Amino acid sequence: MSDYRAPVKDMRFVINELAELEKIAGLPGYEEATPDMVEAVLEGAAQLASEVIAPTNAIGDEQGARVENGQVIVPPEFHTAYKQYVEDGWPGIGFNPEFGGQGLPALMAVAVEEMLQSANLAWSLCPMLTHGAIHALESHGSDALKAIYLEKMIAGEWTGTMNLTEPQAGSDLSVVRSSAVPDGDAWKVSGQKIFITWGDHDITENVIHLVLARTPDAPAGVKGLSLFIVPKFLVNEDSSLGERNTVTTVSLEHKLGIHGSPTCVLDFENATGYLIGAEGDGLACMFTMMNSARLGVGLEGVSVAERSYQHALAYALERVQGRAPGHDGNVAIVEHPDVRRMLLTMKAEVEAMRAVAYVANGHLDQAERNEDAEQQAFHKARVDLLTPIVKGWITERAQELTSLGLQVHGGMGYVEESGAAQYMRDARILTIYEGTTGIQAGDLIGRKVLRDKGLTLQKLLDEINAVAGSLDGELADIATALAMAVEDAKASLTWLLEHHASDPTIPGGVSYHFLMLLGTLCGGWQMARSAKVAREKLTGGDADTDFYNAKILSAKFYVEQTLPKVAAHSRSVKSGSATMMAFTLDQLRGE
Amino acid sequence: MSDYRAPVKDMRFVINELAELEKIAGLPGYEEATPDMVEAVLEGAAQLASEVIAPTNAIGDEQGARVENGQVIVPPEFHTAYKQYVEDGWPGIGFNPEFGGQGLPALMAVAVEEMLQSANLAWSLCPMLTHGAIHALESHGSDALKAIYLEKMIAGEWTGTMNLTEPQAGSDLSVVRSSAVPDGDAWKVSGQKIFITWGDHDITENVIHLVLARTPDAPAGVKGLSLFIVPKFLVNEDSSLGERNTVTTVSLEHKLGIHGSPTCVLDFENATGYLIGAEGDGLACMFTMMNSARLGVGLEGVSVAERSYQHALAYALERVQGRAPGHDGNVAIVEHPDVRRMLLTMKAEVEAMRAVAYVANGHLDQAERNEDAEQQAFHKARVDLLTPIVKGWITERAQELTSLGLQVHGGMGYVEESGAAQYMRDARILTIYEGTTGIQAGDLIGRKVLRDKGLTLQKLLDEINAVAGSLDGELADIATALAMAVEDAKASLTWLLEHHASDPTIPGGVSYHFLMLLGTLCGGWQMARSAKVAREKLTGGDADTDFYNAKILSAKFYVEQTLPKVAAHSRSVKSGSATMMAFTLDQLRGE
Repeated sequence: MSDYRAPVKDMRFVINELAELEKIAGLPGYEEATPDMVEAVLEGAAQLASEVIAPTNAIGDEQGARVENGQVIVPPEFHTAYKQYVEDGWPGIGFNPEFGGQGLPALMAVAVEEMLQSANLAWSLCPMLTHGAIHALESHGSDALKAIYLEKMIAGEWTGTMNLTEPQAGSDLSVVRSSAVPDGDAWKVSGQKIFITWGDHDITENVIHLVLARTPDAPAGVKGLSLFIVPKFLVNEDSSLGERNTVTTVSLEHKLGIHGSPTCVLDFENATGYLIGAEGDGLACMFTMMNSARLGVGLEGVSVAERSYQHALAYALERVQGRAPGHDGNVAIVEHPDVRRMLLTMKAEVEAMRAVAYVANGHLDQAERNEDAEQQAFHKARVDLLTPIVKGWITERAQELTSLGLQVHGGMGYVEESGAAQYMRDARILTIYEGTTGIQAGDLIGRKVLRDKGLTLQKLLDEINAVAGSLDGELADIATALAMAVEDAKASLTWLLEHHASDPTIPGGVSYHFLMLLGTLCGGWQMARSAKVAREKLTGGDADTDFYNAKILSAKFYVEQTLPKVAAHSRSVKSGSATMMAFTLDQLRGE
Repeated sequence: MSDYRAPVKDMRFVINELAELEKIAGLPGYEEATPDMVEAVLEGAAQLASEVIAPTNAIGDEQGARVENGQVIVPPEFHTAYKQYVEDGWPGIGFNPEFGGQGLPALMAVAVEEMLQSANLAWSLCPMLTHGAIHALESHGSDALKAIYLEKMIAGEWTGTMNLTEPQAGSDLSVVRSSAVPDGDAWKVSGQKIFITWGDHDITENVIHLVLARTPDAPAGVKGLSLFIVPKFLVNEDSSLGERNTVTTVSLEHKLGIHGSPTCVLDFENATGYLIGAEGDGLACMFTMMNSARLGVGLEGVSVAERSYQHALAYALERVQGRAPGHDGNVAIVEHPDVRRMLLTMKAEVEAMRAVAYVANGHLDQAERNEDAEQQAFHKARVDLLTPIVKGWITERAQELTSLGLQVHGGMGYVEESGAAQYMRDARILTIYEGTTGIQAGDLIGRKVLRDKGLTLQKLLDEINAVAGSLDGELADIATALAMAVEDAKASLTWLLEHHASDPTIPGGVSYHFLMLLGTLCGGWQMARSAKVAREKLTGGDADTDFYNAKILSAKFYVEQTLPKVAAHSRSVKSGSATMMAFTLDQLRGE
C-alpha cells in the first residue's frame, strides 16, 4: 500500500479558484483547459504517483545509484516506474503538439509535477531536467536540431541534463573553462562538469546533455559562453542512434539525500556537440532552462513538505502517548496542542506555498499566450518577480517543515527506518541547486525590484492590500493582519529605495530578509484569497463544508503563526548591512 | 591537523564576566575557582579536544558502531581518545573529591564539556551520560552503592547509561512496563529498553545501567516507578568484577546522525539490580540525571553550532567565487554580504547561546552551594526557569545554524565528504532526546511559569529591563530594542496569566512560541551585557580592542537580525490555541 495520497482537493481548489483556470482557458491554444480536463489530469496523475512511483521512494534512498564499467545503474524499480510514466503519456503533457506534446498549460502540468515530486523527489528530477532541456532546445535550437531531438525527448524516450557547474565555477558561471572548437558543422566539446543531475543512467537509451562552454577567441566572462547539445550517443538524421560520444561518467557524488538521483562528474573529451542559439548567447539560452527549473525547484519544496506532512500526520494519528486536555486516558499524539501546532504549521504553509507556486505558473501561461501586449507585459513582470520568491522562500520553508515532520515522530524520527528523515535529507538540496537562496535573493532585490524602482512590486503590494480590503466579518482579523504586513513590506521597500545607493553592500546584505518577507507575505496573500473564496462557497451553499471551513482555519492559522514574521524580517531589512560588513576577518575568526 | 580550535577567548569572557566567576569563587569549596584555574582548565581541555578528540569525529561518522557476538564495538580511534581523556584526569573535574573528583564548579566543567562536544558530539555522549548517572547515584544511592561504584565512574573507568524509554513509553514514562522483583538484598530486573545511548561498548570494562522499572504491586503511572542500578558485569564489594549480568544488546539503531554513538536496544532478563532511592521514587531520582542532562544537551547545541561555524568560516575564507562590492576581481565568498549574514547569524547566536548556557551553570553552582537560604532559593528558581530554555531554545536554534553552515558551502555542503552535513545530521537529535522541544516548552510554561504565577519570570524580565536601562551612547540602539523585547515578553506573560484558565489547551498550544520568545530574549539579554562589559573594557584601555569591538558588533548584529523575532513569537502566543484545536481529524487529512 502506498503512503502517499495526492492532495487532489487542494490542487483543484488552487487551480480553479486561486490561479483562475477560466482565464487561462481563454488563451489561444488552451481551450481544452477546462475543469473537466483538470479532473482527468489530477485523477490520472494521482494514481500513477501514489500507486506506481511512491513505493520506489525508500528503495531509491537505500540503494542509490552506482557506476559499473562507466555506466550508471539505478534501481530496477525506477525503470518500471519510468516505463509506466511514459506509456501513460505523461512526459509530453505541457509540450508543443507539433512535436508530440499535449499542449496543456503550465498550470496543469505543475500539478502533475508536484505529484511526481512528492512520490519520489530523486526520481522526479530526471523528468524535470529533461523538461528544462526541452524548453531551451525549443526556444533556441535550429529547426534541424529540433526535428532530430524534440520528439524523442517530449515522448520521454530520451532524457536531458544541464551542464553548467565546474569545480571553480559554481554560482559564478563567468569562470567556466570548458571549451568548444568548430569541427565542420559540429563542434568538439571538452572539459569537466560536476553536479550533473541524472548525468547518466540506464533507464533510457540516450541522454541529451546541454553544455555551457567557451568558444575559441571568445571574450572572458559570461559573454564568452555558448550552449551546446551533446548527446551520449550520436544521433543520425532520422533520430536513430549512432556511435557512443566521448562523454564519460567519472564518478557519482555521495550526497546527504536524493540518493536515487545520480549526481555525476562528467568528462567531455572532444565530444561532438551542436551549437544552440548564437555563439556567445549561452547564458541567455541557459536561463530559459533555469527560470523554468527555478519554478520547478520551488515546487519541489511544496512537494517534499507535503509528503513529509502526510508521513507525520499518519504517525501522529496512530502513536498513542500521554494525556491531553479534554480527553480521557491516553491519546493519539495528534490531540496534543503542540503536536497540532507542528502539523498545522506544515499543513498551512504547504497550502500557502502551493498556492503561490501555482499562481506563478498561471502568470507564466498568461505571459506566454496573452495576445494583449500590456497584459502580457504585466504577467511577464509578475512571473519574473515571483520566480525567485517561489524558488527562494518555498525551499527555505521546506527545510523547517520537513524538520518538523521528523520532530513529530520523536525519537523514531531520528531512526532512518521510520522514513521521516529522508524528506529532510532530500529537501536540503533545494536551497542550493538551480541557484542558492542567496542568488535568488540577489536576483529579486537587484533585477526584479531595484531595476524598475520597485514599480512591479508596488503593483503587487497594492493588489494584496485590495484583498485585505475586501475581507470582513469573521475574516476581519485576517484582513487586519494582512494589511499590517503590507505596511511592513512597503516600509522595507521605501527604506531600500532610499538607502541602497548610499552603500553598495546594502542590497546583498538585506536581500535574504527581503526575500523571506515577500515570500511570507505572498503566502498570506494567497491564504487570504483562499479564505475569501471559501467563505463565498459556504455562503453559496456548497456542500463540502468540511473542506471550506478547513481552508478558513488554515488561513487563520497562517496569519497567527507565520505572518507575524513579516514584521521581524522588515526590521532586519531596515537595519541595513553596516554591522555585518564591519567585522574584520580576524574578528570573524575570534582572534 | 585539527580543524577545531576551541573558542577559548569567548569562553573566558563568558565565565569571568557574564557568569561572574568571582561570585562563585566565594562559595564554600570553590575557593580554587580563580581566573588562573580557568586558564589552566581551558588550555588543557582545548589541547585534548582539538588535537586528540576532534580528529576522531569524521571517522566515527563514517564507521559507526557495530555488534559482534553480542558486544558493541566502536572505532579504535575512540578508544585512544578516551584513554587520553582518562589519563589526563578530565572525567572527574566536576565531581566530589571524596570519590576522587576535583570538585570544580559546574561553570568550569561546562567549558570542558563544550570542547569535548564540539570535538566529537557522538563520542562526548559517553562521558555525558556517565555524568548524569554519577549525579543520580551520588544524590540518591546508599553509601554502600556509592562506595562500590562512584570512584570507578568518576575516574572514567566505568561508564553509565540512562534506561528510560520503552517502545510504548517515550515522552510518557507513566506506561513503563519493565519490572523488578525482590531477590534477597538485590532485585531481578526484566524488560526491554530502547534508545539507550552508549548502552554498550568496548572502551571500558564495565557499563553501569540506571534502569527505571516497576516493582510488584506498585501503583499504575509514574508513582509506581523505581530506579535500579544494573551493571553489565556484577561488581564485588571491593569493586572488582564478577560474572556477566543478564543484560544483552539486541540491536543498534540506524540513525540520521551521531553514528559514532551506539544507540542500543537492551534486553534485561532477570538481571541483578540494586535499588537507588526509595521504592516509587524512580522518577524523582531520574530527574536528577535528567535536569543535569538537559543543561548538557542544551550545551550540545552550542557546541555543534560552534564547530559548524568554524567549518563554514574556513570554507568561506578559502572559496573564491564571484565579485563583491568594494573589491577588485574575484573574492573569497566571505566578502559577499549574504555569506556574511549567514556566518554572523551563526557567530552571534552561538555567542548568545553560550552565554545563556554558562550563566545557567553559574546559577546551578550558586543553587548548590550558596549558604544564604534566600539567595539559594533565588538561584534554584532561576536554574529551574532557565533549564528548559537552555535545552529547548538552544537546540532549536542549532538546527538552523548547522543548516546555515551547510548552506555556506553551496553544492559542496550537500556532498558528505565536505563534512558540513555531519553537523546538521548530528544536531538533529538534540531537539528530541532528554525531552523533546514540546516537553521543554510544556515544562517551562507549566511548572516554571504558571505554577508561581509568573513571579520568577517577572524577576528575570525586570533584571533584563535594568540591563537595557544601563546602556547608552553607541549602545542606545541595543537598549531600545531590548526594552521593546521585554515589553513583548511582558505582554505575552500577562496574556497567558489572564487567559490560560479559560481553556486547558492554551498552555500547550502557545508553549513553543513562549519558549522561543524567552530564549531569543535571554540571548539578547546576555548580548547586551556582553556589549556593556566590552564597552567598559575598551574605555578602561584594555589592549584587546579587536575582541571587545567584535563583542559589541556581535551584540548589534544579534539585535538587528535575531531579536526582532521576539515580537513575532509574542503575536503568536497571544493568538492562543483555538484555531489549532478547531481542526477535525478529517480536516487534517484534507478530506
